[in-house]
Amino acid sequence: MKYGIVIFPSKRIQDFANSYRKRYDSHYALIPPHITLKYPFEADEEKLKAMAKELHRIAAKTPPIPIKVTKFSSFYPTSNVIYLKVEPNDVLERLHEQLHSGLFSGQPEFVFVPHITIGRDLPSGEYADVYSQLKLQDVHFEETVDRFHLLYQLDNGSWTVYETFIVGGKETV
Amino acid sequence: MKYGIVIFPSKRIQDFANSYRKRYDSHYALIPPHITLKYPFEADEEKLKAMAKELHRIAAKTPPIPIKVTKFSSFYPTSNVIYLKVEPNDVLERLHEQLHSGLFSGQPEFVFVPHITIGRDLPSGEYADVYSQLKLQDVHFEETVDRFHLLYQLDNGSWTVYETFIVGGKETV
Repeated sequence: MKYGIVIFPSKRIQDFANSYRKRYDSHYALIPPHITLKYPFEADEEKLKAMAKELHRIAAKTPPIPIKVTKFSSFYPTSNVIYLKVEPNDVLERLHEQLHSGLFSGQPEFVFVPHITIGRDLPSGEYADVYSQLKLQDVHFEETVDRFHLLYQLDNGSWTVYETFIVGGKETV
Repeated sequence: MKYGIVIFPSKRIQDFANSYRKRYDSHYALIPPHITLKYPFEADEEKLKAMAKELHRIAAKTPPIPIKVTKFSSFYPTSNVIYLKVEPNDVLERLHEQLHSGLFSGQPEFVFVPHITIGRDLPSGEYADVYSQLKLQDVHFEETVDRFHLLYQLDNGSWTVYETFIVGGKETV
């Protein structure tokens, strides 16, 4: 089965992102607005249990995660993806690193650029139009999130949450 | 904010349900296939923390949850909803009861009929056609799930998972 690890920002950021995703993001219906910590990877049932355990361990040692959204940006010319830029910080960097070593080994495909995608698969003309408008807009969100999620993918491409991991050793068991 | 509590059955049941939901369920893109334990309710940030704590407590005392899907059924004439029937059992009943008492007080709106919706908002003619075909089909899934989820609703009607609760005191913190 295919798994991924993401952060869902607060409802207000998700609602803001969705107001654009609705029009510009072909994945709008497949997953709520998110920051990808680890791109889709294959794992079986057995590895899954070990991973969940390790993710609890990592979460317990991770402090609350600062999320600061500062502007619209784009991966052009690599791709036509338009996104909300999330400022890098030590907590995000460290978390990303831990999710790509040990049990989660494997080099990340790309340098880690934390972001919330709001547009993809746009034809070049539309991409240029939309992005030229968006990049002029002021955006500012600042918050702290205290959890991340392990998800699995269904046959239709959509994602279901498998488990939540609360950071800072705040698990309320 | 609006919250709800659901069980996501295994991927194979979700994929099976989605093969119908895609055509027949207007909520297909809003949430993965699920069994509703508690219908949408309002809660604020403060109540949320207390609820999460209580849900961990309830989960720790809940054994693994048997899920047995036995046929297509319908809420007609109450509504045109078509669903996969989940056989009631003591664990589901007890969980449902606990999610409607104490901190979660409030009578359930309906008698608890555990189910996975696969069709809704169909015009009567189409409903009758589709249901007359589906009810003849053999369906049989049997499994045990070890978790349920607390979700919140975004402005576009879709649902994001807030937290996972693992039953049977198996939390791996």
